[in-house]
Amino acid sequence: MRLTRVRVPELPADLDSGPEVVLTGSEVRHLSVMRLETGDPLLVFDGRGREARAEVVALDGLRATLRLVEELPGTPETPQPVTLAVALLKGDKLSDVVRAATELGAARIQLLVTQHADVRDIGANKLGRLSRIAAEASKQSRRAVTPAVLPPIPLAALTWEGQAYVAHPYVHDLLAEQLHWDSPVTLITGPEGGFSEAEMEALLARGARGVVLGPRILRAETAPVALLGAIVATGV
Amino acid sequence: MRLTRVRVPELPADLDSGPEVVLTGSEVRHLSVMRLETGDPLLVFDGRGREARAEVVALDGLRATLRLVEELPGTPETPQPVTLAVALLKGDKLSDVVRAATELGAARIQLLVTQHADVRDIGANKLGRLSRIAAEASKQSRRAVTPAVLPPIPLAALTWEGQAYVAHPYVHDLLAEQLHWDSPVTLITGPEGGFSEAEMEALLARGARGVVLGPRILRAETAPVALLGAIVATGV
Repeated sequence: MRLTRVRVPELPADLDSGPEVVLTGSEVRHLSVMRLETGDPLLVFDGRGREARAEVVALDGLRATLRLVEELPGTPETPQPVTLAVALLKGDKLSDVVRAATELGAARIQLLVTQHADVRDIGANKLGRLSRIAAEASKQSRRAVTPAVLPPIPLAALTWEGQAYVAHPYVHDLLAEQLHWDSPVTLITGPEGGFSEAEMEALLARGARGVVLGPRILRAETAPVALLGAIVATGV
Repeated sequence: MRLTRVRVPELPADLDSGPEVVLTGSEVRHLSVMRLETGDPLLVFDGRGREARAEVVALDGLRATLRLVEELPGTPETPQPVTLAVALLKGDKLSDVVRAATELGAARIQLLVTQHADVRDIGANKLGRLSRIAAEASKQSRRAVTPAVLPPIPLAALTWEGQAYVAHPYVHDLLAEQLHWDSPVTLITGPEGGFSEAEMEALLARGARGVVLGPRILRAETAPVALLGAIVATGV
C-alpha cells in the first residue's frame, strides 16, 4: 500500500513524545478524498527536507489532527542543490516548466528577465500560482522539499555559487563530463527567442559553461526539462 | 536572416534542372503569414531527410509555386534512429510528449497499450492530430525528418532492433554508460500508473535495460522528455 503523503507547515524538532499537528485547508480536503479515517497511517513532510510517519487522530471536512510517530530519513534530494534559472515565458508555459523541474529535483526556480523575452514581469497572483504548482508537484513526486519560485530578476543580476551551465548552439561540451557534485549547480535557459549574443557572451565571461543539447532547435519550455533530464539520468 | 522553412510532399530526385513544386493548404497560409513574395528565398524539406534551397515563383492565398534551387545536406539527425515507445496517456498529454520528442530528435513514436493505462485506444482523429503535431514540431525545430506516430499496439507486441531502455525505479545503471550509437535505440516509458511488475519483468527478460532517472516519482509525460534529454545531452 502506498501511504498518503501530506505537507505540514512545521515539524516539531523532537518527535519522540508523539506530538500532534493540526491541518486546515486543502490538505484536509486531500485527506478526505483519500478516504483516510481515524487511526490510519500516513506520511507528512515539511517541504524543507524532513519527513515523518504519522497517524490520523481526528478528521472532519475542515480540520485534521495528526499524531507524529517517527522521523524518517526523508526522500532523496540531489547531492547539491540544483537551481533552474529560466527566462519568463509567454502564456502558461512556466507552469509546465515549474511542474517538470520540481519532479526532476530542482531546489530553486529563479525567474529571469532577458533581452528577447516578450514577457518582462509577472504578477503576484501568477507567482503565487507557480509556487502552488511547485508544492503540488513536490507532493506528487514524493519529494520532501518544495522548490522556491523566486520573482524575476534581470539576467545580469543572476549570481551563482558553484557551477553554472547554459545550453549553447555552437559548443560541444557534454554536461555529464562537466558536471561534478562537489558544488551547487545552476542551469540557465532562455526565452522563446533565445539569449542574445551579448547575453550569452556575458554569461560565458562570468564563468557559465556552454553545453550541447543536440543540433535541433528546442522550444524555451523543452530546454529546461531536457537539461534536468540529463541531470537526473546521472543517477541523482 | 533566418529563412522560412516549409515542408513539401516530395522532392524530385534531381534538382539540377531547377524543378518547380506546387503547394496548397496550410503551408501556403504559412508563407503568406511570413509575408513571402515572388523571388524570395526559402528552405523546403520533405520530412524524410532531404532539404533544399528554393525561391517563390508565384504565391496567392491558395497556391504557392516554388522553384527548387539546390539540395542541402539536411539538418542533423541522431546517428541511429531513436524510437520512443510511450504508453497511451489521458487527455492531451500525448500531444506534449509528441511535440517535445520531435524536438529532441525521436525518429518514431510508437504508442503502447499497457496494463495500468486508463486509455486503451485512440481514435483516427486523435492519431492524425498527433501526426500533425509531429510535423509542425519538426518544422519548428528545423528537422528534415518528421517522426512517424504509430497506432497503439500491446506492450507485449513491441519489438525492437538494437538497444532498448526503460526507466526503472530499483536499478542504478546509467543511460550514458549503457548507450552506444552502433545500433538503433528504443526508449520505453509507461502510463500514469507505471508498468506492472509483470510487464517490467517481461521487458527486462526480453533484453530491455533498466536505467535510473533519479529517486523521484516522475509523471508519465515527464519521463520520456527526461530520457530524451539525457540522450541529446550526449551531443547527438
